Amino acid sequence: MTRTEPNRSSKSESENSGGGGGGTTAMRVIVPLQGVVQGRGGLFLGSVIPCAFFYFLQFYLKRNRKNEPDSGEPIPNPDSDSASPDPTRSQSVGNLTELATASVSGRASCVIKGGDSPYHVGQKRVEEDPYDESGNPDGVIELGSAHTTKMDWVSEDPGEAISDGLCMSGIASYEPCHGLIELKTAVAGFMSEATKNSVSFDPSQLVLTSGAASAIEILSFCLADSGNAFLVPTPCSPGYDRDVKWRTGVDLIHVPCRSADNFNISMLVLDRGFYLAKKRGVKIRGVIISNPWNPTGTLLTRENLYALLDFARERNIHIISNEVFAGSVHEEGGEFVSMAEIVDTEENVDRERVHIIYDLSKDLSFPGLRTAAIYSFNESVLSASRKLTTLSPVSSPTQHLLISAISSPKFVQRFVKTNRERLMRVYTELVKGLKELGIECTRSSGGFFCWVDMRGFMSSYSEKGEIELWNKLLNIGKINVIPGSCCHCIEPGWFRLCFSNLSETDVPVVMNRIRKVCETCKS
Amino acid sequence: MTRTEPNRSSKSESENSGGGGGGTTAMRVIVPLQGVVQGRGGLFLGSVIPCAFFYFLQFYLKRNRKNEPDSGEPIPNPDSDSASPDPTRSQSVGNLTELATASVSGRASCVIKGGDSPYHVGQKRVEEDPYDESGNPDGVIELGSAHTTKMDWVSEDPGEAISDGLCMSGIASYEPCHGLIELKTAVAGFMSEATKNSVSFDPSQLVLTSGAASAIEILSFCLADSGNAFLVPTPCSPGYDRDVKWRTGVDLIHVPCRSADNFNISMLVLDRGFYLAKKRGVKIRGVIISNPWNPTGTLLTRENLYALLDFARERNIHIISNEVFAGSVHEEGGEFVSMAEIVDTEENVDRERVHIIYDLSKDLSFPGLRTAAIYSFNESVLSASRKLTTLSPVSSPTQHLLISAISSPKFVQRFVKTNRERLMRVYTELVKGLKELGIECTRSSGGFFCWVDMRGFMSSYSEKGEIELWNKLLNIGKINVIPGSCCHCIEPGWFRLCFSNLSETDVPVVMNRIRKVCETCKS
Repeated sequence: MTRTEPNRSSKSESENSGGGGGGTTAMRVIVPLQGVVQGRGGLFLGSVIPCAFFYFLQFYLKRNRKNEPDSGEPIPNPDSDSASPDPTRSQSVGNLTELATASVSGRASCVIKGGDSPYHVGQKRVEEDPYDESGNPDGVIELGSAHTTKMDWVSEDPGEAISDGLCMSGIASYEPCHGLIELKTAVAGFMSEATKNSVSFDPSQLVLTSGAASAIEILSFCLADSGNAFLVPTPCSPGYDRDVKWRTGVDLIHVPCRSADNFNISMLVLDRGFYLAKKRGVKIRGVIISNPWNPTGTLLTRENLYALLDFARERNIHIISNEVFAGSVHEEGGEFVSMAEIVDTEENVDRERVHIIYDLSKDLSFPGLRTAAIYSFNESVLSASRKLTTLSPVSSPTQHLLISAISSPKFVQRFVKTNRERLMRVYTELVKGLKELGIECTRSSGGFFCWVDMRGFMSSYSEKGEIELWNKLLNIGKINVIPGSCCHCIEPGWFRLCFSNLSETDVPVVMNRIRKVCETCKS
Repeated sequence: MTRTEPNRSSKSESENSGGGGGGTTAMRVIVPLQGVVQGRGGLFLGSVIPCAFFYFLQFYLKRNRKNEPDSGEPIPNPDSDSASPDPTRSQSVGNLTELATASVSGRASCVIKGGDSPYHVGQKRVEEDPYDESGNPDGVIELGSAHTTKMDWVSEDPGEAISDGLCMSGIASYEPCHGLIELKTAVAGFMSEATKNSVSFDPSQLVLTSGAASAIEILSFCLADSGNAFLVPTPCSPGYDRDVKWRTGVDLIHVPCRSADNFNISMLVLDRGFYLAKKRGVKIRGVIISNPWNPTGTLLTRENLYALLDFARERNIHIISNEVFAGSVHEEGGEFVSMAEIVDTEENVDRERVHIIYDLSKDLSFPGLRTAAIYSFNESVLSASRKLTTLSPVSSPTQHLLISAISSPKFVQRFVKTNRERLMRVYTELVKGLKELGIECTRSSGGFFCWVDMRGFMSSYSEKGEIELWNKLLNIGKINVIPGSCCHCIEPGWFRLCFSNLSETDVPVVMNRIRKVCETCKS
């Protein structure tokens, strides 16, 4: 009614409140204000004054909130000089208690809590009670960590491989953190051999880092700012939660691949992931893939790689291609195609978007070596990465050791071949053993692991059921494997089983332990 | 006038605008709104409606701004599914151009730009044209980088020191990134020797990292969140800009010490820095000190340390005590007091706030070793740091090399003593030489450097004058030193001169070069 009769009651209303009250402070403010509203330019001033008031109130509140002390603020100092603020202001008892404990940062708390995941719990159990055929036959067998120490690369061929000692004279110098050129040349040669010479790597595009974790972290810092994200098709390496997320402030958007598609990467799903993230206001800066895929062991096809390059160009994002198992393709006739090969051979490819991770420790079966490489086609990324390696450098002793180890093409050739053959033998044995137990796994062509389907052994088809089964495997079977949930697989019941550290004679022991668990599940 | 006659013209005004126009859309909105303002509850609705309108407008704009594509957003894909937003929306040409270049992150750009500082420019010049007494006598002498390779620790005493080779057998295993317990025990022993056995270090409180830069970075991550800050009395190590700021999002608040106080640390200035930061809304999480002080070479007194501990407790902040030159105290009778000693001997000290950085590469004169240690009294910091070393681990070869090197107390004792004596001799020669040229420096008791007063040789008393002089030293004198501005010294004309890599016979060469520059300045 008021709206249809705009002018009717304006006067009486103003008389009521303007003339009636008087005396109180409120009235003293309201009356002139009301006068302004109803006077000349009523609409304009009636809007502007409250808007301005509201705006400055917001501004004032925002400013004050920033200055409020929080949990990390100081306990007031009675001796402090006159510039100090009132020490008693807003210091709650709760605050004081927290203050007194010298709290760590929020991100450090997250890192500490991260230790409760099955991934870390299993690792700890292995450390406490490691299996040893003769010394501790009832210990926990490590099938969780993707590493191997089974290749004895020193005694392999001492004559032509590396000298069995590393002379320290002359290596105590200040050398580039990102790698000596001699080492980069040797690494480029090793990478070529690992990729069956399908591509020749340019040493100047290499930046060496102290391990693959550090290489992925450096790339994350270089490609994304805090609050940005990378797309990661899942199941993925459980390490990304640490390497990408712990310190960079960069998030991971997991894009689920399905068992129905054999966990193959799907551009449609990637695309959907991209737009869902965008809808949420998250800026995607790249996609992280692994080839051979971790944890399935699948090799990406040429078509996959072209599709990914197209996707990256269209969405204006980067590609981090994790090829740390490139030298460990064990399937006979399995064709590994490095992203570097596509970029090298195709002219119309946006090379500056492509960044490859390579790990010497994996393919050299020397986990303690802690040497990995970033291979990028982007000069800015290389420049920033080189500088950032000051914060995770490869030491001179390790650099010189590696130079003497992999500079001989003959050794490298033999080593890679022997490694592939060994992996193939163990993998074949393992798959055979699992099949006998009625357990299937996806076809693994490369890497140190297979992706095992144990859905049939869960008490319930849920993450809870998966963790229960994982617990049984660890505590009854005494084998440490990685549950699919750690790889962000959305279908429960899949496990990553690393066979790289097993010898063929270990396989029956593992099978017996798995059988024991399976029997418990059936009963 | 309107204010004093609140009701006078309200009616005519409303009639003018409400009855006059008609027909246009604007009027159709304004008239009823004006009616509301001037009608029943005019003041209330007249405030609420525009406020609400303004608020939702702001909200709408904010929301839309978030979804707008920016430099990192995708080039639209014509094939994308129906869930995709309109690809043509707000894609400016400028945006498209930037998109096509596969840009790096904002922080990577900062890192790349960081290479233009005198600190890096000087380093680069040395790399391109390094001085060599016989091979390149006109090359640039490096007096900028705080390292030394002058101690030949292999040939020193091969019998009792380290074996002159490092056998690789058995070290190719997966070892804890934060250090084997054997190595930690050896490092604890070495640290005790370096601190003249005034304190015994507990190996379980040690976390080894790949270099001091990485140790400082890990501590920064553990103690502060992005947007927090540390107080740093200046002049300070030029490395903090890299170690603390590059990747952690943590800021440094520089607190200037003065030449009038001999650049000694002042609690009053620290306190003022703390409150100024607080006023600006910056949360201070700790204070970074170095002892011996980098770049002055001063030793902190017991009183300094007690005052710092009080300050940290009162302000509820942490202390990062950078003691990387603890084993390099060269002044005869110079008393180095480690923060660890105070914490160990005093009962009423807040030990959980104290975190020490130690560097094996410095005191072992082995810059390429890249091994440092965090020594903390805070279990949470230790726990998080141990995990974070996965991102900057010490490799197995380096760990084993170090174990064999420093496990012999006799070698360690002799090495530390020889190192101190050598540093003292070079320092004495240098100071004598500088005095002859009329150049003074602050008394340096420890570390690899002295802090030289060259104010008298500047063309103008300003940072510009300092950089001009630095340029002359680099290009005419062909010596690379660090200008005070890189150490955030607010008084121009001071330079850090690292003598650790000089032999006594090099000193006259350096003096001749400085003389040459001084003569140019006088003329």
